[in-house]
Formats: sequence, C-alpha cells, structure tokens
Amino acid sequence: TAELCVCEGVPICTCSFILSSSRAAGMNGNGPSKFVDPLEDPLPGVGTYEDFNTIDWVREKTKDRDRHREITNKSKLSTVALLHSISDAFSGWLLMLLVGLMSGALAGGIDIAAHWLTDMKEGVCLIGFWFNHEHCCWTSNETTFKERDQCPQWQSWAELITGTSEGPFAYIMNYLMYIFWALLFAFLAVTLVRAFAPYACGSGIPEIKTILSGFIIRGYLGKWTLIIKTITLVLAVSSGLSLGKEGPLVHVACCCANILCHLFTKYRKNEAKRREVLSAAAAVGVSVAFGAPIGGVLFSLEEVSYYFPLKTLWRSFFAALVAAFTLRSINPFGNSRLVLFYVEFHAPWHMLELAPFILLGIFGGLWGALFIRANIAWCRRRKTTRLGHYPVMEVLVVTALTAVVAYPNSYTRMSGAELISELFNDCSLLDSSQLCGYKPVSVLADRPAGEGLYTALWQLALALVFKIMVTVITFGMKVPSGLFIPSMLAYYHHDWFLFKGWCSPGADCITPGLYAMVGAAACLGGVTRMTVSLVVIMFELTGGLEYIVPLMAATMTSKWVADAFGREGIYEAHIRLNGYPFLEPKEEFEHSSLTVDVMRPRRSDPALAVLTQEGMTVEEVEALVESTRYSGFPVVVSQESQRLVGFVFRRDLLISIDNARKRQEGVVGASQVVFTEHAPAHAADAPPPLRLRGILDLSPFTVTDHTPMDITVDIFRKLGLRQCLVTHNGRLLGIITKKDILKHMAQIANRDPDSILFN
Amino acid sequence: TAELCVCEGVPICTCSFILSSSRAAGMNGNGPSKFVDPLEDPLPGVGTYEDFNTIDWVREKTKDRDRHREITNKSKLSTVALLHSISDAFSGWLLMLLVGLMSGALAGGIDIAAHWLTDMKEGVCLIGFWFNHEHCCWTSNETTFKERDQCPQWQSWAELITGTSEGPFAYIMNYLMYIFWALLFAFLAVTLVRAFAPYACGSGIPEIKTILSGFIIRGYLGKWTLIIKTITLVLAVSSGLSLGKEGPLVHVACCCANILCHLFTKYRKNEAKRREVLSAAAAVGVSVAFGAPIGGVLFSLEEVSYYFPLKTLWRSFFAALVAAFTLRSINPFGNSRLVLFYVEFHAPWHMLELAPFILLGIFGGLWGALFIRANIAWCRRRKTTRLGHYPVMEVLVVTALTAVVAYPNSYTRMSGAELISELFNDCSLLDSSQLCGYKPVSVLADRPAGEGLYTALWQLALALVFKIMVTVITFGMKVPSGLFIPSMLAYYHHDWFLFKGWCSPGADCITPGLYAMVGAAACLGGVTRMTVSLVVIMFELTGGLEYIVPLMAATMTSKWVADAFGREGIYEAHIRLNGYPFLEPKEEFEHSSLTVDVMRPRRSDPALAVLTQEGMTVEEVEALVESTRYSGFPVVVSQESQRLVGFVFRRDLLISIDNARKRQEGVVGASQVVFTEHAPAHAADAPPPLRLRGILDLSPFTVTDHTPMDITVDIFRKLGLRQCLVTHNGRLLGIITKKDILKHMAQIANRDPDSILFN
Repeated sequence: TAELCVCEGVPICTCSFILSSSRAAGMNGNGPSKFVDPLEDPLPGVGTYEDFNTIDWVREKTKDRDRHREITNKSKLSTVALLHSISDAFSGWLLMLLVGLMSGALAGGIDIAAHWLTDMKEGVCLIGFWFNHEHCCWTSNETTFKERDQCPQWQSWAELITGTSEGPFAYIMNYLMYIFWALLFAFLAVTLVRAFAPYACGSGIPEIKTILSGFIIRGYLGKWTLIIKTITLVLAVSSGLSLGKEGPLVHVACCCANILCHLFTKYRKNEAKRREVLSAAAAVGVSVAFGAPIGGVLFSLEEVSYYFPLKTLWRSFFAALVAAFTLRSINPFGNSRLVLFYVEFHAPWHMLELAPFILLGIFGGLWGALFIRANIAWCRRRKTTRLGHYPVMEVLVVTALTAVVAYPNSYTRMSGAELISELFNDCSLLDSSQLCGYKPVSVLADRPAGEGLYTALWQLALALVFKIMVTVITFGMKVPSGLFIPSMLAYYHHDWFLFKGWCSPGADCITPGLYAMVGAAACLGGVTRMTVSLVVIMFELTGGLEYIVPLMAATMTSKWVADAFGREGIYEAHIRLNGYPFLEPKEEFEHSSLTVDVMRPRRSDPALAVLTQEGMTVEEVEALVESTRYSGFPVVVSQESQRLVGFVFRRDLLISIDNARKRQEGVVGASQVVFTEHAPAHAADAPPPLRLRGILDLSPFTVTDHTPMDITVDIFRKLGLRQCLVTHNGRLLGIITKKDILKHMAQIANRDPDSILFN
Repeated sequence: TAELCVCEGVPICTCSFILSSSRAAGMNGNGPSKFVDPLEDPLPGVGTYEDFNTIDWVREKTKDRDRHREITNKSKLSTVALLHSISDAFSGWLLMLLVGLMSGALAGGIDIAAHWLTDMKEGVCLIGFWFNHEHCCWTSNETTFKERDQCPQWQSWAELITGTSEGPFAYIMNYLMYIFWALLFAFLAVTLVRAFAPYACGSGIPEIKTILSGFIIRGYLGKWTLIIKTITLVLAVSSGLSLGKEGPLVHVACCCANILCHLFTKYRKNEAKRREVLSAAAAVGVSVAFGAPIGGVLFSLEEVSYYFPLKTLWRSFFAALVAAFTLRSINPFGNSRLVLFYVEFHAPWHMLELAPFILLGIFGGLWGALFIRANIAWCRRRKTTRLGHYPVMEVLVVTALTAVVAYPNSYTRMSGAELISELFNDCSLLDSSQLCGYKPVSVLADRPAGEGLYTALWQLALALVFKIMVTVITFGMKVPSGLFIPSMLAYYHHDWFLFKGWCSPGADCITPGLYAMVGAAACLGGVTRMTVSLVVIMFELTGGLEYIVPLMAATMTSKWVADAFGREGIYEAHIRLNGYPFLEPKEEFEHSSLTVDVMRPRRSDPALAVLTQEGMTVEEVEALVESTRYSGFPVVVSQESQRLVGFVFRRDLLISIDNARKRQEGVVGASQVVFTEHAPAHAADAPPPLRLRGILDLSPFTVTDHTPMDITVDIFRKLGLRQCLVTHNGRLLGIITKKDILKHMAQIANRDPDSILFN
C-alpha cells in the first residue's frame, strides 16, 4: 500500500483519491460468492457518496441512530454485546483523546523541526548538526544574554567557510547562504506538495469549512496529505516565507482525526459523525497553534464548523485540552508556560485609551478589507493568467524576494513568532532588545528614547510595508500557509508610531505591548471577521485577562468597518473563489423570492423526471436514469396523480439494479420495478419483479411552492439537506437542491451562477 | 397604572398577567372606528399568541424578514427612510448597550444593598445607618487588620442596647438581633413576592430556559417582576438564607432586556427576535454575577439558550462586557479588579495531582446527583402535600433555623462570597484568617498546623453538613434564590480534609486554595451539568488561567458520574417538575417509533378536523372551531382528496371572522369562507364570501407518516416548530404538535404523559 504515485499538474489529487478508494473497496467488498438480498443487508456502496458531492445530513444521522439502536438492543442479550455497547459509547471520547495526543505530538515535532531549520539558515552547530542555535549553546559557559547567543560551538556559515565572522565578505557569505537555504526549503516544499499531495497546499481552512458543511473531497484529509503537509509546513516556515502555521495545523489535526476515525466503525462509516470529530479537530489545531484550548473551541464554533451540537462542544474542549497539554509536555519552546507569548505587564488601562483602541480597530478593519481584495485579485490572476502554470517558479521567486529583502532587516529576518514576542513584551531594564533602547538613566526617572529605538522604529516600518506586500502574494501559493501570524504582524507599524508620540516625553505612561496586542487583534479581526474567538485566543496567547475590553472594542470595530466593505472574511472569499458549494450560515437570505422561482424544472423546462411506484420496467428505469444527470429521483403513486411516495438516489438505484441483474435469478430488462410494500400480482409468464422499497427514502423532505426562499434556505442550513421536493396542494411539482439555492444566491448578488462548480 | 393587586395563593400570577395584558391591549387597540381589510393590513391580534402557548419560530422569523425587507426597500426612496433603515440596523447593538448598562447598574446596586443589610444584622453605624461596616470604619484611624473591623463608630446591637460588647448576655443579645433581622428580611421578601409578583420567586433559570425555547409566560419578565425581584433578592441574600444570586441576576437581566425591548418596534413585536435579546441577557446576568463575561456567554450558549446564532453570540459578548464594565465602574467590592475572587497563587500543579482532582470530580458528581434527587423530592412534597399551602411559614422556619444554626459558626455566619474568598486564598503570613492558623515559626521552615486550624476544620465540617441540608430545602422556596454559591460551598469539607492529611507534615506542599476551587467546580458541575462554561467562569472568577486542566478534569468527571445517575441537571429537573413544554436539545431521541405512531388522530380516534378551501360557510367553520380545542386547522382542497393547501391558526381565524362580522358588509353566518386565490363565482342572491387567504399559512411544514420520530424531533428542535402536518402519499393524514412529542417522550421514559401541562 505504500506505493507512490505522481500527479503531474493535476489540480485534483487523483493519487490520494485512488489510494483511498482502493482501500475502501478492499474493506467493503465481500467477494461475489455471497448472495446478497437487497432487502436485507445493505449492499456495499448503497448509502455512500461520489467524490465532490454533498452529503445528506439527515440520512447520515438516521443511519447512526439505527446503528446505535441496534447495538443498544443487542446489549440486553449478551455480555459481549453489552461490552461492545459500552465501548461504542466511549469510543467518541477515546477518539478525542487520540486526536489530541497525536496532534499535540505532531505540533511539537513541527515546532522543534521548524526552529532547527530556521537556525540552519544562519549557521550550524559543531557538536552536532541536529542541534538548533539555542540547544547548541546550552552547554556553553557564557552567561550574559548577548554572549549566550554567540557560543563557540555555533558557527555561522561565513565562519565555517571563510573562517571569519566579521567584515563585508562574511556578511555577503551569510546573506548568500541564507538565500540558498531559503530557496532549497521552498523548492523542496513545493516539489513535495506537487508530487505527492496537491491537497497539502494552502491554508486548508476554506476546504475544511466546506468539508464540514457536508461536501466530500476524497483524499483531502488522507494520510498522504498529512505526511506531506507536516513536512512541507516545516520547510515553508523555515524558508522564511510570510506565512503562519495555524491554518496548516488545523488541516493536520483534521487529517489526524480523519485517519483515526478509521479505527472506529461508528465514525468510519458515517459521514455526519466523522464531521463532528473534524469540528473538534479544528479546535485542536488552533489549540496547538497558539496554546489556546478555549480559543480553539470558540474558533471552531464561530468560524469553521457547520453543525456544532453541545456534545461536540464538550468533546472539542476535551481534545483541545489534551492537545495543549501534550504540547506543553513536549515543551518545544523551552519554557514551561502553556501561554505562548506571555505578557509581563498587568498595568490597568484607562478609559481614555478606548479612543485609540477603537482607532486601531478602524484601521484593522480597513486593512482587512484591503487585504482580502488584494489577495483575491492576486489569486484570480493566478487562476486566469499564465502565472498559474508555473507554481514552482512563483514560490521560488517569492522566496528569493522575501529572503533578499528580509535578511538585512533584523525584524523581518527573525521568525514571526519571535517578532511577536519581542513586540508584545514591555521593556524591562534587563532587556537586550533594541526596541527597548531607552538610555538607562535610572529606574524611576524618565527614560528618553535612545537612538536604537528610532532605528528600530524605522526598521519596523520597512518591515511592515514589506510584510504586507509579501503576505498578499503568499497566501494562496502552493505551499502550506496560514494567516494569523503575518496578519498580526502587519499592524505593528501603527501602534509603534502611536506609542512613539505618547511615550517619548515620559516613559511608562502607556503600555506599548498592549497596543501591539490590540492592533494585532484588530488586524486579524478585519481579515477573518472573528470576534469572540479572537479575543479569547489573544488573551490565552498572552495571559492578559485584564485586557478583554480593549481587545473586544478593537475587534468589534474592526469587524464592523470591514463588513462595510464586503461581508466576506478571507476564508469565505476563498471558498467562493474556488466555487465550493458552501451555504454560508452567517448571512441571512434577504431576497423575497419563493421556492417556486428557484426549483427545477423551471416553467419552460420539460417536466421533472419521476419514477412511478409500480408499472415501470427495469429497462425503462435504466433509460430514464441514463437520459438525465440528476443525483436522485422522486417516486410517485402514478404519473397522473403525481402524489409523492418517496425519493431514491441515482447511485443506490444503479448499484441495486446492477447487483440484481447479476445475482438475482430471473431479473431481466422486462422485469417490473416495484417500490410498493406488497408486490402486485403478476402474470405467471412475466419475469419476477425487482423490489426496491429497501433503497427508497420514505421520508423525503417537502416544502410547498409558496414557501418563501428564506425559510427554505433556513431548512437547508439547519437540517443539512442536499435536496428537497416541492409540492403544490399535495402534488409533486419539482425539486430544489443545494446547488440551485447557491446559484440563485449568486444570481441575486450579480455574480456568475456557474461559479458553483460541484454538486 | 401603578395600581397594586394581591394574588392570594394563586399559583400563576394573574395580577402581573392582567397588568401586562391591559398594557398590550392599550398599545394595539386602534379603536373600532377604522375599517380594516383583512387582506391588507394585518388585524390587531392576528399573529400573536395566547398566554402559556408555544410560539412558532419559523413564522416569527418570516415576519421579521418581511419587516426588514420592507424597510430596506423603502430606504431607497427617501432620506428619512434611509435613516430609519440605518437606525433599525443598529437598534440591536444599542439595545445590547442599554441592557448591559442597566443590568450592570442594578447588579452593582444589589451588591451594595446586600452588603449593607448583611452588616445590619450584626450592628449599626453611628455616623449614619446607611454605611456598611467597612465604609463606616474607613474614616477610623486603626490600622491593623484586626482592629480595623472594630472601629468605635460601628456598634454591634449588644453595644448599642446594653452598652457592652463582652459577656454571654451581649452574645445572646447579638444572637437574638441577628435572628430578628434575618426573620424580618425573609418575611419582607416572601410577602413582597406573594403580594406583587409571584413570578419573582425561585431561581428563574428553568422558566427562562423554557421561555427561550419559545414558550410564552406573560408577565414573567415584566416590570413588576423586575422591581420585586431586585428588592427581594437583596432581602433574601441579607437574611442569610443559603442561596446565591446568579439565578436571580439572570432573571433580573432578562427582565431588563424584555422591558427595554419595548423601546424598539423590531423587538417589541417579534417573539423570536426578543428571544435573541433574552439569550444575550442571560449571558449578561452571569457576567455581572461573577464578573465573567466570557463565562456568561458560554453559560447562555451551553445551558440556557435554545436558538443561539452567531449574531447573538457577538451581541451577547458585547452586552456581557458592557455589563461587567459598568459593574466594575460602580465597584461594589471596593477593589478595582474585575475578578471577584482573585487567587494569589500561581504555583504549577503536578501530574500526580490529577488523581485527587478526578476524585474530587467523582465526589462532585455523586453530590450533584444526590442534590438533585433530594431537592426534587422536597419540591414534589411541597407541591403535593399541605406544606405548599404555607409558603410564608416555610420561609420563616427555614430562615429561623438557618439563623439559629449559622450564627455560632463563623463560617456559616459570613456570606457565601466572603467564605469563598477566604477558602480560595492561599495562606500568607499576614493573613488574619483562622484557616491560616499555622504556628508562625519562620518563613521557610515547616509550619505545623496550629490549634486554630483544627477548630477551623471542625467548624467547616459542621458548616458543610448544615449547608447541604439547608440548600436542598431553600432552592425552590418562594424567594429569589440561586444555586451557584451554595453548591460551591458544599464541597469544602472534602478538600479540607484531604489537604489536612497532606499538609501537616510539611506546609506549602500543595495549594489548598486550588483544591477548594476544583472541588467547587466539580460540585457545581454535578448539579448543573455545565462543563466548558463552568471552567471558564471559574478561571474568570479566580484569574487562574493555569488551572484549566485540573478544572476540566474535575468537571468532566463530575458530569460523567452524575449523568450515570440521571441525565437531567437541576434546571431540567425543575422544568419537568413544573410541566413546562421544553424539548431538551441536548438529548437524542433514541426510540424507534415512527411519526404515524405519535401523530393525532390515533388509529381509533375520529378523523382530523379540517377546513376545505371552499364550500364551508362561516357558521360551519365556527361550529367546527367551537367543537374542538385545537390551536389550528389544516385547510385541504376537498374532503375527498385530502390534499393539503395550508394551515390556519384558531386564534387568527376567530379574530378574523369576528372582525368581518362586525365590520365587513354582508358577511353573515351563511357566507362562504374561501381560502382560494380567486373567489369562486357565487349566486347573485348569496351573501358575499369571506376571503381568508390572508391568514392562511401557505407553507405549512409536512413530514410523511413513515418519517422516523428521531428525524421529526430533530426538525421540531432545529426549526423551532409548534406543529407539523403528516401526509401519506400526498394525502393529509394527521398532525403532530410539540406537546404530542413531549407526551410521547414521557411515555417512553415511563413517566406520566399528563405531566406536560401547557401547550
């Protein structure tokens, strides 16, 4: 099974598709020897979905309830069945524990590896190349902060090659080596992604949102995606590209969850149950990215999930805690705190400061709206022009650019996380950071801003402009990329200028770290339109429980301002760009159309293709199925009455007929297809009828033609429907599917209705 | 309107009902002079609900969307309409701001007043009786902790009356005065509740949960309830009864929200929109009770709310923050922290300690299950025996008992909040608390437990036993009462014994305050079955972000253990006890019945009462309506075909016919009632038909008779339906209502199906 396959330039990962479908076939295929009665055991394949199709939540949940009921009923009969029932009840929690442990461990590994490779760009450890800079110097005897970083065991590339670490030649040497490593990492990353798992590229959150809403993308959460995404995330982060790791970590956690689901029948066979686990995994991803378990759960609830019952809330929280705890045990950052960027300041803030906080929010909102527009425009250009044909080249060019510009500026050279922790921290007298370059006069006296501070501000301003441009391009490239850290960074400019004006006369008047924090939140809020989860993530990230009000003021303002320019966050914008069938649960449907205006067939179209509950032959049914491309057919009492009996899925119908022709004696093309409970009397010479009531959904959802579309949309959203039948005064009139609704919504918004690509 | 009315022994508050319905009538009644066409403007009363009925969420939301659409369409026509549209869009946020401000201010007032009255039981301030003990002594010059509490301006009752504060006589004098004040407060509280607002009794959370799920209880959130609940909460807390104030504060916040809703048409006229505001108000209540805005939002989401879209999440968070901020500005506790019981310890905990934490969780779960059983048994006894006829006497007896037993024990004498803050805190050397009575040998040496500690432990043990018994009785009495603080208290016993065993050999080995915190969470988790919100409340309450894992381990264990004994939390148990029609969203419907088994009419019953879309006369319709008690009637094409056209509500039908008879010319008993779009041609001598298509719901929900009940229950829950029609092969077969479902569920659980009292 470990065979490798190569997909050259294929947009959809056929290789992982083949892998997973062959696995599925091997699991379900019982061999042709066993006779299968279509009315008893469900046929293999009946009740499953095609790739790029939408699941029917109600059907999946019914399947799970039936399964559960069966286990409960059996449990009264024997002790083994009772144990099975108990283990089944706890399997959800066990699965959560495993997801938490696995994701936490992977995140720890990724952190350690990324740290090591990032340091590799600058030099190597002589006692062993597998040590990073910090570990290498642990054994060193130097004690001061400055010298600790310059222990003799750690040599920069210039030292190693030319023997000296001073002078312009050494600088150029280091510079070149830095660019070389960055390019190497980026090249490896993009090649691996293209060769083995095209689905491993990008943030993954738009796709995961779509999958959670009920869409099927086979292989998107498979083991190849997991392996490649983990490796390439390390490489991409190390290459210095302007990207964060929270999106990819969410994707990685979801892959873990999906793979672990295969251990439990309950989750392997049920798409709806599996999506509950994936919702929790999204929480786990954010939890390990920021050490923020509660923030992760709220992120999953507010931003990613589609169906989030209370049970999932509890399980998400449990999994997020386990993951955060595992990560803390691995301790990749060398400090024992769970909080990533622990802020030391706890100074109260003043009411007056709310004004600048709200100002930060406004700028954050503007930035967010601008960022989304610029990024979408760039991605569209990538899709439509020749640019999209050279993804490797694009990545290499951007990496080279990033490396060339980033190296001379110490703020862009350091990793995003390091920069944030430097910016969030208040200056203490012991601090070696340049940002704290006040002239150390005395502890309590005023500290006038020193030269270093101005240099730092200048560098930061440059860093900002550069980061903004690069991030717009990077997000959406063919490497794993997240968005949080770059977005947070983008805001420092502002608050450092603000803070400069305020604090030069007398230091300690305000807390610059707080402004950095609020600015970061405002900016991220503008890009993603998160509010509550963002505030919680921010204070879990920094430990500053006192600053809820400033954070909230800024994020709310930011959301309002950004919403005024366009109601979509970056993830929704990417979902729409990719044409996924995603029914946005946040926005209300405001148009006053009726269901009859949206359903198929339209007034001018031919009548709806329906099956009758008796009287049609196998051949007629097959002809009808062949002549259309619908995913399912309503079954009516008779063509005249058009009274609805049920609904049958195309896939189930084809599999059942196929199976019956092969294995059931006497079923030929002229056999009657019967959906009624009792087979009608048939002539002695006629072939036996094919009874298909077993695959008939006897409780299809119906709405009347007069139902306002907003109610219909609500029903689709809340119940997770795939299609719904439309009746008028008790007669079947038409059908409305999720795709019809999405096309209608696109039409209303004056967008191209054919941008919705999949079913 | 300020007329007072007295309800003697009436279980349902007819007085507030009368008050509010007369107000409603005054608002809607346009006088009989205006001619109203039933097809144009909706009649006053059409689309409203009777008291003790369930609303139809879909209908309400459609109403709101229509209103919104109308405003948006008009806004393109004139500037005034545009301004109206903008103000309408922001009215939700404005309302949230007002709710936050009002609730925060009220909570601050309640805290101050309760503090003052509690101190009043022990003595009085000579410079002004309106000062509490602490304020009275602020001006005093005494500086040590012990003497600060004994300033000359503050005199105990014994000092004031007998002139001495020492000796047994003074003790007895103080004791008697303590009991006297407690009884006086309790008597005032129960009398006020009974006289002016019977709805002000109890916690209010079960009723608010029911209201949020769509039930109507007029006057439950009215101004009288607000006023009386605020006053009596102060009195009840001050009387020393074992009750918390979070439940009543949630109720108070919901009253504020409901009253403020009347300022905005959008919320006044729409039951669904108003429930969104009430969900946010529940968050506000918890936010001000504990200073925990995030915990409050999660509490509303996890425990109270039924319909909680993301929009409500954002607004709840905003309102909760405003409220917490207002409360902080009022600063009733005299410290500037938002955190109520700020814990000073930040010591890390060890992995090994997870074992005792889980043990605490198990005990918490057992205690929770036990508490619910005991409390429900007591409340049932109150309902069924003569005990319920003497609520005033019951309150007075319990108060007297509480006061008599509480006074000698300093831990029961102090208020719950004071006790908690004493228990949560780690001992420092400066501490004056008896619990910290280690012999002060030296700072770093072992500190053997002193005499004081043993006394304290003994007193605490007694306090625990007493508190448990009293709380069981108190919750459900006819005074405002919450549950959090008493539940939290109940657990101290255990951890103090645990801690004793551990810490006598060497102090500082573990953090006793942490055990108190975890124990409190476990216990509360067992009673309410909250998990995530509880953990968040606990760490917002204490500021201990580091202790998420211990708290979570304990609450999850507690929930599991308690669930094993019965799946209902205390609030659900009370909802069931009171027979409210509440469809629990947390539990899955597991039985395998079909809709046809639950719907009306049953197989043996007469056929369903239906109207035909034409052919029935006004008299026939009236006779049909009179002969049944259904809240609505399906309209079919004809009695023979039974093909469904729509659904009409009894209330709307009666109001419309009544109105037409009075104001529409020619409408008499023999007029035809017509629901079709075009009136049929009628004979020249026949009276003109009464056209009622305007009140016909053309999009009634339908399910087929074969739909499994679990899907039907899901539809009811998720869409918030009141009733649903059942069809078989396109023909109308029956109707299923929320009450039918609840009765069916009660039957399955072997409970009395007639315990569901209301519609």
